[in-house]
Amino acid sequence: MSHGAAEPLMTWVDGELQSSVSILDRGLQYGDGVFETIACRRGCLRFVAQHVARLQQGCERLQIAFDAHRKLTAELERASRLAPPVAIIKVIVTRGDALPRGYGSVGRESPRRIVTMWPDAPLPESLRAQGAAVRFGQLRLARNPRLAGIKHLNRLEQVLARAEWHDAGTFESLLTDSEGHLVSGTMSNVFALKGQTLVTPPVDQCGVAGVLRAVVLREAAHFRLEPSIAPVSVQRLLNADAVFLTNARIGVLPVSRLGGRTIPIDARTRALAAHVEQLDA
Amino acid sequence: MSHGAAEPLMTWVDGELQSSVSILDRGLQYGDGVFETIACRRGCLRFVAQHVARLQQGCERLQIAFDAHRKLTAELERASRLAPPVAIIKVIVTRGDALPRGYGSVGRESPRRIVTMWPDAPLPESLRAQGAAVRFGQLRLARNPRLAGIKHLNRLEQVLARAEWHDAGTFESLLTDSEGHLVSGTMSNVFALKGQTLVTPPVDQCGVAGVLRAVVLREAAHFRLEPSIAPVSVQRLLNADAVFLTNARIGVLPVSRLGGRTIPIDARTRALAAHVEQLDA
Repeated sequence: MSHGAAEPLMTWVDGELQSSVSILDRGLQYGDGVFETIACRRGCLRFVAQHVARLQQGCERLQIAFDAHRKLTAELERASRLAPPVAIIKVIVTRGDALPRGYGSVGRESPRRIVTMWPDAPLPESLRAQGAAVRFGQLRLARNPRLAGIKHLNRLEQVLARAEWHDAGTFESLLTDSEGHLVSGTMSNVFALKGQTLVTPPVDQCGVAGVLRAVVLREAAHFRLEPSIAPVSVQRLLNADAVFLTNARIGVLPVSRLGGRTIPIDARTRALAAHVEQLDA
Repeated sequence: MSHGAAEPLMTWVDGELQSSVSILDRGLQYGDGVFETIACRRGCLRFVAQHVARLQQGCERLQIAFDAHRKLTAELERASRLAPPVAIIKVIVTRGDALPRGYGSVGRESPRRIVTMWPDAPLPESLRAQGAAVRFGQLRLARNPRLAGIKHLNRLEQVLARAEWHDAGTFESLLTDSEGHLVSGTMSNVFALKGQTLVTPPVDQCGVAGVLRAVVLREAAHFRLEPSIAPVSVQRLLNADAVFLTNARIGVLPVSRLGGRTIPIDARTRALAAHVEQLDA
């Protein structure tokens, strides 16, 4: 599927128009930082407070002394005013430069904000209508509770998992962890609907606690659904009334093919998708 | 302990004197790359062929189409001629820029070479003589055979593990994996000597297959030692005749304190250290 145009329209480093960064940045040296991918629609940053809060939480978990979230929010708003009607704004916060060399942090680093604004294309209506084809990935996610849930910059597992398929007809790959538990897609969270229960796997050993995942869990009650964070076996997924994916760019996207099998699309998924689409906080 | 001066003396990107890199580099965006830390002594790059070979293997494992190892070797040699008598040359190879945005690689990326040259200080003679104090770390390394052994850029575990202690008297922390198996230090491999057996843990689930680790395994026979890659329990480590650490900068460094206990330094460790010190390939 298309991710819109190939080049970012504008880029900033610490609020200045800039497209390069020191090679000593610990984000490059060690993946020592966090990021957010924010959907921008007609100048509106969707769920921006939640994204910035998660960024902040990730920094706290990694002991990155990032205290510029207000400045960052202002920069994101400025970027949103310059953005085309459908855009993605990605923000990276790193711990700053590795000086001196080495894994150890001296505690005096200045965290760095890197913001890129990308033109995006709306998800094709046919994809939203017909649902996504999803495969099961082979790569097993490693379990580390210290890194789980955070949207950190150590993303080699996602890079390798995304390299497993090339056919444009497959939208996403669902991944299990090293013990065989379903976790998420390479770039999305996954939900299963069965009766009144809406379940998504825990992300306390691996995976990312998605902003849209939290929104869906919060909004489920409006549809008389009982949200649940619980293990989801592949069998349970295949036997669900419906399965859908979430992330900032796609919102709620129904799944219609799962590992070669056809999965029904539930009316409640469509209602939830439409509901989330018109929210922005 | 000191890592020498805080600033690099010279830096290159793709062979050009340069100290910054595109913010779109996949090394920064995803930790999508590999690195080597090479000791340079009086203009000699120690074990440079092994370092470049491991870099190449890492790229192959990550499907990074890096074919510039001759060019890189020439650049490293040029850097070594400009280096002070005791220096570290670090090289990073990334997959190139993330264009378009997203985990997926389009296969047309140009891998990027980033070389930094740092002044270093020799390890204090007193440390070599008296041995290093080593603790046991709390962070458990995640197991992923797809990433194990490679010196890749996803190093948040090492950053977090290095943040566990601040006293300058402790040199290194030994880490176990999520199943409790001893793996390595945060920046070194570990060996235990018992009778004629010299054992180091496998790095097929996590950890890095160190260049100096391979050198020690290769050279062990010269000291009538039987090298072995096998699980090493903490108990086995504590009951060893001797324990030592290896990496490119420290060579072979005896351990004298382990989790608060005193560990003897074996004459064979000193002989091995002296032997490795005068090798360079």
